[in-house]
Formats: sequence, C-alpha cells, structure tokens
Amino acid sequence: MNWPGPILTDSGGYQVFSLGDLREIREEGVEFRSHLDGSRHFFTPELAVAVQDALGSDIAMVLDECPPYPSDRSYVLTSMERTTRWAERSRQAVTRKDQALFAIVQGGMYRDLRERHARELTDLDFPGYAVGGLSVGEPKELMYETLEWVTPLLPKSKPRYLMGVGSPDALFAGVERGVDMFDCVLPTRLARHGVVLTLDGRLNLRNAVYARDFSPVSSECECPACKSYSRAYIRHLLKANEILGMRLTTVHNLYFLLRLMADIRTSLAQGRFKSFHREFMCRYQEAEESTIQV
Amino acid sequence: MNWPGPILTDSGGYQVFSLGDLREIREEGVEFRSHLDGSRHFFTPELAVAVQDALGSDIAMVLDECPPYPSDRSYVLTSMERTTRWAERSRQAVTRKDQALFAIVQGGMYRDLRERHARELTDLDFPGYAVGGLSVGEPKELMYETLEWVTPLLPKSKPRYLMGVGSPDALFAGVERGVDMFDCVLPTRLARHGVVLTLDGRLNLRNAVYARDFSPVSSECECPACKSYSRAYIRHLLKANEILGMRLTTVHNLYFLLRLMADIRTSLAQGRFKSFHREFMCRYQEAEESTIQV
Repeated sequence: MNWPGPILTDSGGYQVFSLGDLREIREEGVEFRSHLDGSRHFFTPELAVAVQDALGSDIAMVLDECPPYPSDRSYVLTSMERTTRWAERSRQAVTRKDQALFAIVQGGMYRDLRERHARELTDLDFPGYAVGGLSVGEPKELMYETLEWVTPLLPKSKPRYLMGVGSPDALFAGVERGVDMFDCVLPTRLARHGVVLTLDGRLNLRNAVYARDFSPVSSECECPACKSYSRAYIRHLLKANEILGMRLTTVHNLYFLLRLMADIRTSLAQGRFKSFHREFMCRYQEAEESTIQV
Repeated sequence: MNWPGPILTDSGGYQVFSLGDLREIREEGVEFRSHLDGSRHFFTPELAVAVQDALGSDIAMVLDECPPYPSDRSYVLTSMERTTRWAERSRQAVTRKDQALFAIVQGGMYRDLRERHARELTDLDFPGYAVGGLSVGEPKELMYETLEWVTPLLPKSKPRYLMGVGSPDALFAGVERGVDMFDCVLPTRLARHGVVLTLDGRLNLRNAVYARDFSPVSSECECPACKSYSRAYIRHLLKANEILGMRLTTVHNLYFLLRLMADIRTSLAQGRFKSFHREFMCRYQEAEESTIQV
C-alpha cells in the first residue's frame, strides 16, 4: 500500500451488520451473503483478528456488533454481552506483538449498559478502547451525553477512540470529553462531491458562483491544492469529471482536518482549548450533521 | 493548471466536426449546438486563436476541418480549400509572440490533395506543421502511406506532428517517416480501463489471473507505480473503483510511452533506430489498432 505512517484497520463488523437481512448473528460469529455475488461467508472474532494480522496494521479492532439507533434495551443487552465474549475471544486470538488490538464499547443509548460494558472491557485490559455505536443517526446531543458516560471509565493512559466522527464541531466536542482519536469518511466523501472545508464553513465548489473565482479554496491554507489551484479551476475539473478535481478537494479536506487536530493539541498544551474552540466555531458556524459513517 | 512543462492546445475543431448533425460549416466558421445543453455556438478560426491565446499554451493549433474516413474526393477538396483559407485567417489573428501556431495538413487519402495542401500551408510559413485527418478509422497501412506523401514536403527545420497516434507500433512507424511529435488519448484511456503497456505487450490488470500476482506491473520499469505497488494491489484498487487504481495505471502508461520516445531518440542519435525498432516490436508483438482519437 506504500503508506509510511501508522495504519488502523477496522474488523469489518460495522459493514457486516449493515447488511440487514443478508446476515445472521450466532454465538460463534456472523454468517452473511455478499451483496455483490451472493456468496456465503462466516465471520468470527478470530477470523477478524487473523485477517488484520495478515494485513499487518498497527492498530486492529475487535469484531463487535453495532446495534442500529434506536434499538430496544433487551436487544442491546443481548448484543452487548455477546460483544464482550467476542472481545475476550479476539484477545486470545492475537499473535502479533507489533499490533495493538482495541476493544469497542457498545451499550446503545442506555447509561447503565454503557457503564457496564466499559467496565467489562477495561477489566480485559486492552491496549486501547473505542466508543462504538455512536454517530449512527442519533441526535448530536445524545451522542455527546453518551460519550460523557463512557470516557471517564476508560483508562487515561490508553488511547480513547470515537468511531465515525469527523466534523469540526464533533471533533471539538469529542476532545472536550476526553477522546484522543477519530475516524470518519466525512472529509473524503464531501470532497468527492465537491464540498470543501474552510475556516468559514463548507463551500460547494460545483456552484456556479465559483466559475470565475480565481482565488484559492482558502487563502489561509498551505495545502498543495490551495497553493497552486483556483476555485474556478477546481470547479471546472469537478464539472468535467476530471479525477484531479476530486483529488484536490480530498487533499484539501484531509489537510484541513489534520491541521485542525494539530491546532487543538497545541491549544491543549497551552491551556487555551476552550477559547480556541469558541473562536473556531464562532467563525465556522457548522450547521450540519456530523453523523456520516461508512 | 500548475503544469511546469510545455503545453499544447488543440483548436477544438475535431470535437466540433465530430458532432455530425449538430453542426453546420460555413465559410465564416462553424455553428454548432452543445450536445450537453443544446446551446448554440459559433466558432471561427479567429475565435479558436483567441481562446488558445487566453489559455496561454506554448503551441496552439489552427481550426481545421477533419473529414471523416472515407470521404469522397470533391468533399475533401472543398473542405481542404476552406481549411487553407482558415489557416491564413488564423495566422493573421495571432497576437502573442510566445505561442507557436501550427497548421494542420488535410487532404484525406488523396495523394495529390495531400501534396497540394502541404505546399499551400508551407507557403504560409507556420512555425510547425501537423498531419491531421489520420488515425480516424482507416487501415494502418493507408495511414502510413499517406504520411509518406506528406512528411517529405514539410520543412525539416520545423516540428512535424502526427495527431491522434500513440500506440508503440505507430510511434515507430511515424518516427520512421519523419514525425517529431505525437498526441493520443491511448495511454490514459487504456489506463482508466485497467490496461497497462509493458515491453511484453498489453496486460489487463482487471483479469482474475492477477489477483495474487504480487510482482510489479513491469520489473523493468522505474515508474512510481512499479516501484511501490503490485499487480494484485492495483487490480484490487481497480475492482473496488478506488481512484488510486486508475492513477497508478495512468502514471505507468505515460511513463512507458515517454520512456519509449526517449529510447527512440537515443537510438536515432546512435544510428541504431532500425535495430531498436525490430527488437522492441519483436517482443511487444502489438496486435491492436492504434487508431484511437478523442
């Protein structure tokens, strides 16, 4: 793959459980039919570890079940207990010394279940913990509340990872609640649709208003797209379906979010996170949902 | 556009004349309706120069008419005479000193018309000459024969440019007949379909046979795709519609053809073009048409 940086792989559980009628969950694992060719597959916690072991990522994720929102309490409880047993089996299946397997806290939007699952998994002593089952369509405020139940119970000395979150407002909210890591398709998916993130919010470069706008996406951005290309030119590329258009918007959006996280870390080190948060959001005025997940 | 090398722009004539019923040719220029939104446009030789002037390319092309193959002699003659008058008007319209406007020799597959047009245009003293109206569906041997009528009449001191040609066998055949420059969508179009050029001919990387082939596209190639990625990985990217797949095959094919032309220039300088041609084609065994044009 030729990527020189650290690599995180997910278990594929989220994708399997999204298949709906095409999958059947049993204690041993999950059986599913491919939506592409109908072929049958049986996926177990051990197989998810073995696949990620073969991929050689730096961080691997356990196979968990991510219940949809909303789900009733009894279903979430049954699913969560199985996810704990699967986490234990996954930990037993680890063979690599150079790969960190993270557990994933579930429990839906039920406080006692979330707290119980966080304790069960921390007792199993994983090298890192993710909060799963959020950013799946619930109101943002409910996501933040759930996060506040869970993160205080996770060890401060280990990475705490909020899955499926990537909009600037939710990144700030996550960091505020103790989250260290995020992942999200938001920057790249938006980019492929011609939407770029700037300090003044989102712009849709496909709009006609940019047809003769020869300024960069952002004059404050140092990314390769902003240093060498105009909004008008990128718009032309997007309208003509030239691949370079999507590449430039993707490069810009990734640069923007990585830069934002670097600025957040600096503000934390300098004890001015709250004021940075306020100033950034005041300008950004993010109005949209952050709940986009693969 | 951020391209540091020389840039050549075409007049758009080929695209306009390909519109068929949507366009009407008059002495003044060509009127056409957009196949996208039905809007009406009137394109003249002067406008084609002005547009390319504004684009600021290093080499611009005159607006010519490229008759389809086959076309009857009387039509080709009428069209060719108008193309000469348009070339004269184009030359008068040039204002930039830093842009070379090339004329385009037409005349269909008629030897006397080709010779007459080559003379008419060389009398007008352009800084470079293209051979147009070839690689439009005619048999390859007829293309080579036509080329042999034209290139001896074009000044050796100026670039001779064969439009729409890019397959290795046709590049050799063109150079053999005095051509200095080519353009073609072949390497990039093939790449987008997963086809790569190698010293052993074309490979379609989408084929199942490459699913577990962890060797590079070509072990003899120094391009970024071959230095860092395997056939199996590029195939995976292509099958998953990951943009990187098409980028890697595109980078490889452009590198392959640029390297081939560099090797051809070296062989010419060393007086061993004929043996290089024979050795290359013996291995390459190109069986396909070279006649792909935008």
